[in-house]
Amino acid sequence: MTMFSRLVRFLARDGRTYYGDAILPRGVTDISKASQARIIRGSIFGSHNVTDEVADIRLLLAPLAPEDVRTVRCLGLNYEAHAKESKMPIPQYPIVFYKPFTSLSGPTDPIPVHPLAQQGTGLDYECELVAVIGKACADVSESSALDHVLGYAVGNDVSHRDWQLKRGGGQWSLGKGFDGWAPYGPGIVSTDLIKDPQRLGIRTRLNGQTVQDSNTGDMIFSVAKTIAFLSQGTTLLPGDVIFTGTPQGVGMGRNPQVWLKNGDTVEVELEGVGTCTNKVEFTTARDSKL
Amino acid sequence: MTMFSRLVRFLARDGRTYYGDAILPRGVTDISKASQARIIRGSIFGSHNVTDEVADIRLLLAPLAPEDVRTVRCLGLNYEAHAKESKMPIPQYPIVFYKPFTSLSGPTDPIPVHPLAQQGTGLDYECELVAVIGKACADVSESSALDHVLGYAVGNDVSHRDWQLKRGGGQWSLGKGFDGWAPYGPGIVSTDLIKDPQRLGIRTRLNGQTVQDSNTGDMIFSVAKTIAFLSQGTTLLPGDVIFTGTPQGVGMGRNPQVWLKNGDTVEVELEGVGTCTNKVEFTTARDSKL
Repeated sequence: MTMFSRLVRFLARDGRTYYGDAILPRGVTDISKASQARIIRGSIFGSHNVTDEVADIRLLLAPLAPEDVRTVRCLGLNYEAHAKESKMPIPQYPIVFYKPFTSLSGPTDPIPVHPLAQQGTGLDYECELVAVIGKACADVSESSALDHVLGYAVGNDVSHRDWQLKRGGGQWSLGKGFDGWAPYGPGIVSTDLIKDPQRLGIRTRLNGQTVQDSNTGDMIFSVAKTIAFLSQGTTLLPGDVIFTGTPQGVGMGRNPQVWLKNGDTVEVELEGVGTCTNKVEFTTARDSKL
Repeated sequence: MTMFSRLVRFLARDGRTYYGDAILPRGVTDISKASQARIIRGSIFGSHNVTDEVADIRLLLAPLAPEDVRTVRCLGLNYEAHAKESKMPIPQYPIVFYKPFTSLSGPTDPIPVHPLAQQGTGLDYECELVAVIGKACADVSESSALDHVLGYAVGNDVSHRDWQLKRGGGQWSLGKGFDGWAPYGPGIVSTDLIKDPQRLGIRTRLNGQTVQDSNTGDMIFSVAKTIAFLSQGTTLLPGDVIFTGTPQGVGMGRNPQVWLKNGDTVEVELEGVGTCTNKVEFTTARDSKL
């Protein structure tokens, strides 16, 4: 059995969707640059094999198939400077909220903005390190927490500040949970390649301009601490996805404030993982129907 | 094809687990009284058949198999008198938060209280009408919203007020999302039997004493309004479970306040559906490990 290094899910030139291990040119670590992958057979959470079959990547998809995702948890205010720019107190415990799995989307998918989210103001970006659980755990210690991680991706916790903070009765999920408001990817880098998730540069570019630029070392609650805390009385399962909070520089915290507009391009980047590049696309209600 | 009337999931005397249509004595509507069910073949969300095979029920389980559940949404403060007893404003829009699907449990399962939730005070009950989505919908109108409902159950949105309100940074999910903190059932009654979900008595008994006693007609946002609102920009899927809020009478709102203790028995009841009876069981960390 060989384990993946950089898990991708992709549409291949044969029109089928595969899990694969991304092939990158020497010296390149951004998975979004991959044009080929070795096809994976078996269960990505269990016994699997990276085969010698190489496929051409036509399109990188959200790294987990929807049926392989279980619960999406997110942390709020997990970087001190971001808590300050949000005018919120530094949290004593991790602040947890949820997104529905339908908010997950792929590394180049548009971010659909439904008419409800075109009301008011406050459409915003948040680059985040995303940890994916690979093995079930409950009451896990901080020192063994990372043994339960499948790997790391980068994601954008897209947020509508009016719906998040003003119209949702104080509960954040509604204004962050719309379909496609959690693009992530471009793949999942194994814990063999990223042994320490707390030393990675993380940034956002809005229409090419850097607006967030930080390091995961600045997290208040490390990935290990977060998993240890969350797993107390709450079983974490393979396919659980954890967005670990965003650093300073969000549109809400800028002076003057900056809100996403129709047609804007947002890139979120995590060192050693790669880039998701998503275009904001205002929709009508009909467009977003099944 | 025959559709179910009262969907149950149960352990049968043969040691296997089935979906079935509960058989009730004439005049009885509480599904928890069922001792037999007709086995269902096929997909509960799609084409299925209620067969003539009758099985004895050994134990009623959570009405949806974990793999058939998608997203668990909950409303807060959806009864005016409960908003008042909570000293919170009447919401202008539905207040939405999430529980992980691992919080769901069956109609007679114990409510496990992990050491983390034994800290502080505030262990509380909340009886709620639970609507289960049967057909995918997005941007559905209020008038056709109920066509997308599989049926109704009763549930207990178990809550720890300290973790919900004080230690969670204002986000409610953590203090409501522990494993087994959303018992529901005893089955799912079809929309053929319950055509109007807004005229059902709903109540809680704590150790036999009635502590909540209301009617779903008192909801601020009806089930139809809730589904229409939630489906704006957020696709609802078969297996999505919606807890629709609790009426007045929770332990936090009583004078003096009443908190659940180890060994307490909580019954939540919905007219035309039945009763879930769950015992509070303080655990050690080890007990709740996988």
